[in-house]
Amino acid sequence: MPSASASRKSQEKPREIMDAAEDYAKERYGISSMIQSQEKPDRILVLVRDLTVQRADEVVWVRARVHTSRAKGKQCFLVLRQQQFNVQALVAVGDHASKQMVKFAANINKESIVDVEGVVRKVNQKVGSCTQQDVELHVQKIYVISLAEPRLPLQLDDAIRPEVEGEETSTSQAIFRLQSGICHLFRETLINKGFVEIQTPKIISAASEGGANVFTVSYFKNNAYLAQSPQLYKQMCICADFEKVFCIGPVFRAEDSNTHRHLTEFVGLDIEMAFSYHYHEVLEEIADTLVQIFKGLQERFQTEIQTVNKQFPCEPFKFLEPTLRLEYCEALAMLREAGVEMGDEEDLSTPNEKLLGRLVKEKYDTDFYILDKYPLAVRPFYTMPDPRNPKQSNSYDMFMRGEEILSGAQRIHDPQLLTERALHHGIDLEKIKAYIDSFRFGAPPHAGGGIGLERVTMLFLGLHNVRQTSMFPRDPKRLTP
Amino acid sequence: MPSASASRKSQEKPREIMDAAEDYAKERYGISSMIQSQEKPDRILVLVRDLTVQRADEVVWVRARVHTSRAKGKQCFLVLRQQQFNVQALVAVGDHASKQMVKFAANINKESIVDVEGVVRKVNQKVGSCTQQDVELHVQKIYVISLAEPRLPLQLDDAIRPEVEGEETSTSQAIFRLQSGICHLFRETLINKGFVEIQTPKIISAASEGGANVFTVSYFKNNAYLAQSPQLYKQMCICADFEKVFCIGPVFRAEDSNTHRHLTEFVGLDIEMAFSYHYHEVLEEIADTLVQIFKGLQERFQTEIQTVNKQFPCEPFKFLEPTLRLEYCEALAMLREAGVEMGDEEDLSTPNEKLLGRLVKEKYDTDFYILDKYPLAVRPFYTMPDPRNPKQSNSYDMFMRGEEILSGAQRIHDPQLLTERALHHGIDLEKIKAYIDSFRFGAPPHAGGGIGLERVTMLFLGLHNVRQTSMFPRDPKRLTP
Repeated sequence: MPSASASRKSQEKPREIMDAAEDYAKERYGISSMIQSQEKPDRILVLVRDLTVQRADEVVWVRARVHTSRAKGKQCFLVLRQQQFNVQALVAVGDHASKQMVKFAANINKESIVDVEGVVRKVNQKVGSCTQQDVELHVQKIYVISLAEPRLPLQLDDAIRPEVEGEETSTSQAIFRLQSGICHLFRETLINKGFVEIQTPKIISAASEGGANVFTVSYFKNNAYLAQSPQLYKQMCICADFEKVFCIGPVFRAEDSNTHRHLTEFVGLDIEMAFSYHYHEVLEEIADTLVQIFKGLQERFQTEIQTVNKQFPCEPFKFLEPTLRLEYCEALAMLREAGVEMGDEEDLSTPNEKLLGRLVKEKYDTDFYILDKYPLAVRPFYTMPDPRNPKQSNSYDMFMRGEEILSGAQRIHDPQLLTERALHHGIDLEKIKAYIDSFRFGAPPHAGGGIGLERVTMLFLGLHNVRQTSMFPRDPKRLTP
Repeated sequence: MPSASASRKSQEKPREIMDAAEDYAKERYGISSMIQSQEKPDRILVLVRDLTVQRADEVVWVRARVHTSRAKGKQCFLVLRQQQFNVQALVAVGDHASKQMVKFAANINKESIVDVEGVVRKVNQKVGSCTQQDVELHVQKIYVISLAEPRLPLQLDDAIRPEVEGEETSTSQAIFRLQSGICHLFRETLINKGFVEIQTPKIISAASEGGANVFTVSYFKNNAYLAQSPQLYKQMCICADFEKVFCIGPVFRAEDSNTHRHLTEFVGLDIEMAFSYHYHEVLEEIADTLVQIFKGLQERFQTEIQTVNKQFPCEPFKFLEPTLRLEYCEALAMLREAGVEMGDEEDLSTPNEKLLGRLVKEKYDTDFYILDKYPLAVRPFYTMPDPRNPKQSNSYDMFMRGEEILSGAQRIHDPQLLTERALHHGIDLEKIKAYIDSFRFGAPPHAGGGIGLERVTMLFLGLHNVRQTSMFPRDPKRLTP
């Protein structure tokens, strides 16, 4: 679709081409008409990452963004970018390009998308600034497919900005490709273990855990709420004999916290599983699932990890097999030895969590561990008490680089004990009647947990803010884009 | 965990066991204490589906639900159910069982979960009512692990109810296992095609398509909305050069429709993809993804399909390769030939969609087809007009058994044309400013579509209500459980 067939639209765009009265190359460049699926040409677009010496001297078509451009006399050097790959392209006055064409190329707004026909040429000296270091593209035709508006008022910064932007774009691509990999590995592992994926509702009629931190929705003539967790639904599926279930979906928390690790909407990777005799059967399945994710990321996403490390350097993530499991009382002893004063039934503060992470790393050389047997007093009412120690519970958190990424427990499956524990917590029984009733028709013993996807991504990569690992983060002050 | 170690809890439960003064089998049955992860016995629980003649004469432990029980003199026959599998078990007065033990077994409430030790015995005559037809279990020990409350006031129906319930349970299990398979096949296919999974926010600051049918959320001191589609976010990912993305997540529609195929919250399987020259590149990827799902279901989920068919008989789902693509004007011609009066720019009504489905099935023998080139007038403002015919658009729906399961289009990627079309539709530009602005920095041509998971499940299985394929359906009148 060269400019010869320019539509109404193209005429409203820059007119460099119109000035080219005596231009012997005028058919070889320009602003294309908008792609409206007019044609199905059999032209093949080659990927930038495939531009290597194997293709030397071939004529290829490439579609990419203009990352940078630099005119110099009768030549213009462009860097063409496609996702995390880029290649140098040269438009030089000669048989194929006129001086008008070089000027046109030099004036294309950065970030515009172009279709370029060129010859792949081996270079004598590596192009250090590009991923495709051994070749450059000698441009024969160049058409703008989608014109970027100029980025005013940033002209002053133009000299430095493009490179930083390019790096940020690559980092961002790498982070979210790796995040996609976490979801994939999570499901792949669980499906191989015989789990069934379920879909749980996000609009619910009653606030699940007593009503704090819940968003209210106008639902026709009534009010409804956004689910703070899929837990009730996962448990109902266990009661319906699905035995092992998982789900991936948004979780909503109306907490007015503005920290590096809280979002009001995040993605939960949730697991629930019936067990035979001991909740450690479940604990081990969850820990193994995380280990499979870590291994898979290190095997399949090295490029992405290295791309992120370039901008945000970080030690590789370490873990043990089998996963280290510490009991809460052991952790308390370690913290006390390090000078922390804490009561036996006190929860871990964020600084103490991080300190514990450092102590565990020093002693066991792992960035991933399980903390088991939390004090009953600091866990939700549905947590199964430890039958051997009434102050403890069958509950656990998991940590990556000293920060919590999963919270879980054996759940109480007996309606009578559940009622007792709810009353003990001062919870209005009317509000959780449906929850308690779901265990009246014979519930198998079960346990589970929920993982925060953005946190796992952040901590695996050693980043420091969960907003870097959420494409469209939501917090009390941020709702756009 | 036999009753000997009965805890406080077990004493509050039925007391059959307490009456057993002279009972030589009294250690062999009872109500277990609640499983609180007291022990890690090395007992292996065998799956009901593995109880076959290969295990004849072995002593096994099984955990299952009491599906039915029938006492007859000195014997009691139980049917033990585990997911969609069941086996007959016999408790008979003899060396292992006393008459008190038989009475105990006969009185266990249906649906209770029991641990049973028994000998697998080959039977001479097939047990027609069970999935494990060639064996039965001769019970030596039986303990109730989780007691179901009796289901009053349904006693009168007891004779017929259990079987129907069992069938419903199996059907339901099969439907949702198959649905889990649809998600799995969708992702597996797209990841193999190089797509990246993305997570899009559900709480948004502005109603995406002008504000109709949107749920309002109280967001701290402001109002926010629930996303009616991930489309804007998918498109932003395309603008950020992800090239091919998909997502699976809840979609919210505040429509007051109470039909067999509308829900206020459903699961969307969404695709968006940049293309080189023609949106049919995308159309073909989407159609192929659906074909891979259909094939995968027919290969991997025959058991589930047959289980559902037993309760809801239906013709196998038929499709062609490549997928049949009809243009809207061809469909109009077929409908008109069948006596329907319709204008050229009129949308299809639900009855006409269904009629068209029957006509297509007769003529082409397929339950799946694409309807391409919808009239521009009946599509949203962001739909790319057909450059060859101003009354048509580059948009399409896909149908299964005559009902729409996907709607999609080439999207306008040029901010100026998008503005014109929005004005033409009378849309307030202020409200969609962020949307239009996302195309100002060079957007590649792209197309996509959204699939309704519950509809695909319903129509693949030939069911008639989308509530059967949503575990926890939400409609204007239904918010629980």
